[in-house]
Amino acid sequence: MNTNLQKLSASLSENRWDGLLITDPQHVYYLTGFASEPHERFLGLLLVQGEDPVLIVPALDAEAAHAASPGLRLVPHRDTDNPYSLLGEQLHGLQAPQRFALEKEHVSLARYEQISAVIGAVAYDDAGPVLRDMRVRKTPEEIQRLKHAVRLVEEVLRHGLTHVKEGVTEVELVAELEYQMKKLGADGPSFDTMALFGEKTALPHGTPGARKLQYGDLVMFDLGVYAGGYASDITRTFAYGSITPEQENIYQAVLGANLKGIEASRPGVTCASVDQAARSVIEQAGYGPAFNHRLGHGLGMGIHEYPSLHGSNQDPLIEGMVYTIEPGVYVPGVGGVRIEDDVLVTANGVEVLTSFPKELTILG
Amino acid sequence: MNTNLQKLSASLSENRWDGLLITDPQHVYYLTGFASEPHERFLGLLLVQGEDPVLIVPALDAEAAHAASPGLRLVPHRDTDNPYSLLGEQLHGLQAPQRFALEKEHVSLARYEQISAVIGAVAYDDAGPVLRDMRVRKTPEEIQRLKHAVRLVEEVLRHGLTHVKEGVTEVELVAELEYQMKKLGADGPSFDTMALFGEKTALPHGTPGARKLQYGDLVMFDLGVYAGGYASDITRTFAYGSITPEQENIYQAVLGANLKGIEASRPGVTCASVDQAARSVIEQAGYGPAFNHRLGHGLGMGIHEYPSLHGSNQDPLIEGMVYTIEPGVYVPGVGGVRIEDDVLVTANGVEVLTSFPKELTILG
Repeated sequence: MNTNLQKLSASLSENRWDGLLITDPQHVYYLTGFASEPHERFLGLLLVQGEDPVLIVPALDAEAAHAASPGLRLVPHRDTDNPYSLLGEQLHGLQAPQRFALEKEHVSLARYEQISAVIGAVAYDDAGPVLRDMRVRKTPEEIQRLKHAVRLVEEVLRHGLTHVKEGVTEVELVAELEYQMKKLGADGPSFDTMALFGEKTALPHGTPGARKLQYGDLVMFDLGVYAGGYASDITRTFAYGSITPEQENIYQAVLGANLKGIEASRPGVTCASVDQAARSVIEQAGYGPAFNHRLGHGLGMGIHEYPSLHGSNQDPLIEGMVYTIEPGVYVPGVGGVRIEDDVLVTANGVEVLTSFPKELTILG
Repeated sequence: MNTNLQKLSASLSENRWDGLLITDPQHVYYLTGFASEPHERFLGLLLVQGEDPVLIVPALDAEAAHAASPGLRLVPHRDTDNPYSLLGEQLHGLQAPQRFALEKEHVSLARYEQISAVIGAVAYDDAGPVLRDMRVRKTPEEIQRLKHAVRLVEEVLRHGLTHVKEGVTEVELVAELEYQMKKLGADGPSFDTMALFGEKTALPHGTPGARKLQYGDLVMFDLGVYAGGYASDITRTFAYGSITPEQENIYQAVLGANLKGIEASRPGVTCASVDQAARSVIEQAGYGPAFNHRLGHGLGMGIHEYPSLHGSNQDPLIEGMVYTIEPGVYVPGVGGVRIEDDVLVTANGVEVLTSFPKELTILG
């Protein structure tokens, strides 16, 4: 059995759960090695005290599930089957359990109504924190995969810069970047690749469009890849041709905040304190309100996972965590700058996984 | 106000709902024109009887929301705010409502626990069916967008075929296809683009990899694009160099099933009857068990939406529906064939939106 699955099985008795149902496909992958996208079809890994795990899986994915996890017991369901009835049949002797765990952030209210009707537990606990705590400490193998995903995305970005020319559009750059991802063997982008020019850089979640690059634009790239099931995420901002003094001030404030966030990171300090350390640099530069998002987010199998680095999160950093540090300042009419690195918490501080230069660079 | 939002507002009194909360970002787009990907951040469009709609939106998307929907009242929340408290404040005089509607298929159990704590309704109804019924009849504008998305993906596929050469890998073809999507102005793939060769075609949800194309392989493409917020979805299967008699039998059975599904589609007949009409062709050819998925799925803003065309769905087809017809046969050791079209239900039958040839074609 997969060691992650063994650990999770052990958590049943630790938490006094009679059973546990995993429905997040990413967690099914983490626990069994079987990756899938079931869309609206039901996928559930059922753990019951004293019994072997069983995967209720769409019939059309059953062969792939067997290939990925040969020892796992499968219950395939066709589109005409009611998967909740099949789930009920797998509960066997488990009658009216006291405590049953579900992934409360993943299971929809509609599914919960169906699941709880067949399980009939007295209380439902959230299995999320147990999985979160397992996932947050990256293993050496996971770290290797994350480093590989970072190396790939940095190569993609380097290549992308060779296409930054007057008149190129944002979507053309996105197409080049995503093409390179595939060419280099990434599974694909880990989120919608972003390339924004000029006034559009002032939208932290702007959408690339037909905007053409002009002399004097800021150019912001935010991209990541999935490779081997793990995500990378990097942002760099450049000037094209020239930069105004105010844009340069903003750039230096954001870079200072990025470096401060890295410096402040080590085991035991809170997420809030790291956010605040970085944020104070931007506040001192007079741009506090224009940094209107958190400092960063955990990274791993998910592109946005625990922990969230924001000013209200008093959770401490732990060795083995991987997260982003991505301060940004967005001023309508002037432009936006964001600089994002991925870091791994070590015994004394952090190892910065991203190595792409971040000093102000004027392209073209 | 957006006409979709007007219609939904009217449904409050029709359903005797004191209020309604929309949390699916796709529905927020449908109702307000504001498209976003809030990831784990809270996004909610609140409708309360007799009050103006209000959008609770991540602060970093507030500017984009205002630009897309200038008249809409916004309540931005920062990462340090509790969005559920802000939701509670917006409920004003609405104390202990009798019936409140949520999107039960979208809202997670964890969110439901937070939302219900501030709303405190006696009962929660599912808003899903109302939105489903609105969305299922495509408007002329939506049909134009769907046709545009189909035209784009067919151009992408035509281009992709020029790269089918001995030794090319599945992922290289996927990279070419997705590159063309972007070049042609699509927003991106509407799902993970699939190109599978040889034995891998026997996996209906297989993952493209480093498999190189060889003489005698079946080649299956399944791809779609998003354009203007609407999705297309097409599958074609080819032979490379040669085909065996059994593979050709399978191809003709699948093609016959595809044509039968199109012929059987018209307003008033059930989804199940269309599935069965197509399936019977494959059953008669002796491959019934190897067609291990439903016939098709609704298509629109979502890549998989209502209706689901499977043997247990007694819902009738309605004029204005758009869905896929995609029979497939998968035989380990022999290969798989799937042929998928997108169709629009008209007054008397269907208009087939996809026009890519589907007679057996031997490439190379």
